[in-house]
Amino acid sequence: MEIIRIPRIMQDTCKKYLLKGRSIGLVPTMGALHEGHLSLVKRARTENDISAVSIFINPTQFGPSEDLDRYPRDVENDIKKLRAQEVDILFLPDNLLMYPKGFVTYVEVTAISGKLCGAFRPGHFRGVATVVAKLLNIASPTRAYFGQKDFQQTVVIRRMAKDLDLDVQIVVCPTIREQDGLAMSSRNLYLDSRQRQAAAAIYKCLSAASEALRSGTASSAETKKIMREMLAGEPLITNIEYASVYDTNTLDEADQMQGEVLLAVAVRMGEVRLIDNTVVNL
Amino acid sequence: MEIIRIPRIMQDTCKKYLLKGRSIGLVPTMGALHEGHLSLVKRARTENDISAVSIFINPTQFGPSEDLDRYPRDVENDIKKLRAQEVDILFLPDNLLMYPKGFVTYVEVTAISGKLCGAFRPGHFRGVATVVAKLLNIASPTRAYFGQKDFQQTVVIRRMAKDLDLDVQIVVCPTIREQDGLAMSSRNLYLDSRQRQAAAAIYKCLSAASEALRSGTASSAETKKIMREMLAGEPLITNIEYASVYDTNTLDEADQMQGEVLLAVAVRMGEVRLIDNTVVNL
Repeated sequence: MEIIRIPRIMQDTCKKYLLKGRSIGLVPTMGALHEGHLSLVKRARTENDISAVSIFINPTQFGPSEDLDRYPRDVENDIKKLRAQEVDILFLPDNLLMYPKGFVTYVEVTAISGKLCGAFRPGHFRGVATVVAKLLNIASPTRAYFGQKDFQQTVVIRRMAKDLDLDVQIVVCPTIREQDGLAMSSRNLYLDSRQRQAAAAIYKCLSAASEALRSGTASSAETKKIMREMLAGEPLITNIEYASVYDTNTLDEADQMQGEVLLAVAVRMGEVRLIDNTVVNL
Repeated sequence: MEIIRIPRIMQDTCKKYLLKGRSIGLVPTMGALHEGHLSLVKRARTENDISAVSIFINPTQFGPSEDLDRYPRDVENDIKKLRAQEVDILFLPDNLLMYPKGFVTYVEVTAISGKLCGAFRPGHFRGVATVVAKLLNIASPTRAYFGQKDFQQTVVIRRMAKDLDLDVQIVVCPTIREQDGLAMSSRNLYLDSRQRQAAAAIYKCLSAASEALRSGTASSAETKKIMREMLAGEPLITNIEYASVYDTNTLDEADQMQGEVLLAVAVRMGEVRLIDNTVVNL
């Protein structure tokens, strides 16, 4: 595995592969890699000649009161895991090379970025869209891989890629879950053992809501009620930021219960913020 | 000359050339081509294997009260001129293919975009940065050519290309002028014959200010005064939007009179807005 730390060298390296007609699969991550990330890596390896993973904790997607400083970092273990997957390139850029002095350009996916998580994390999706645009321009991948767990992120990135004519296929892979259904996330490391157990309530809520919708007996409003009641029943969940049924494209609350709908949840367990979702085909 | 109207086909065509190791020079324009544009085209032809010109009157860079509807259009003559230059590809996209239903993504070069012209044309440089990002992603040129006449535009585009890691060389070419010094611009077509004659005052003002600076006798404030007085002396100039000495990087008014400084002017002659500039090396 080649480890590249300088954007310009990463760009030249990837261009060379493309000129030889090789396809490149990129998995952008913030490190602290878990099975969710590794499922993306495996898929990138299968579908492309060259697999590349980026690890970059992107400061522009964290708000001033968010967890940038304590976000889990474990590059040594990450490198071991990626070597075991036989990844070809690890892109590990320095903050000052990604955002040099004088940096002032941002990509804004308006309309979508302010909804759901965006309402609670102002500027978050501007940071995400900007860094992903940069990573896509640096690595010029044939395909880029993202987890469905961050559903809104995948909508924002797909929209950006389409709107800015980026020549890349955005591949969204299923959420990988723990035994009890909790969606894998680097932020799960923040949970103490009681919180960790209680966090299973999120998946239980999504499963119950999904079943209610599929049975055809629950309206959108009733499904939302089921979701909120189940989450409110778990005392360690200290706040429900959102929990409802949404249109998978606009991310507005859905009232038409047909085709694909999104069930999505964001909760707080004390300081820790957890999100999860599932898509139901009706 | 191949005429391509569909972004996806333009993208595939350019990718094919790149895969063959050919360099591409792109000249983005809004049409109504004059000698200024053609100087860019000539340079793009000389420096690259493949020369491409885009003609697209970009709606997102016009404000609601601006001249989008009456902006000069003369595609037939433009095509003749480009054929005469032996341009390889003309990209002539339709508005609905550039901004399809659901388009919501914009590139913002903050800090620079609100100054000079940006203060008088809110949203203008957001539209410019967005459409240029799109055109660069569609044509993936080795080099892209812009005229120095739109100085702030070149600063915005260079900054965007650097910040978003676009793998393109931005080439800025000298302003081409009429006999009396008036900078060539598609908007000169708006001028009646009296206004056209009076418009030469802009270049005279830049020349005088440049001479004053070079002589070493004039301070920044004195130079600004000379500029504004000369422009105010022309009765057909109905408004001076800005006229002063600026830092070529930050576009703030310069007080340090050393190295490169920018003399820049924007005036109104009735409905018509004209800009011009010159860079002085001290």
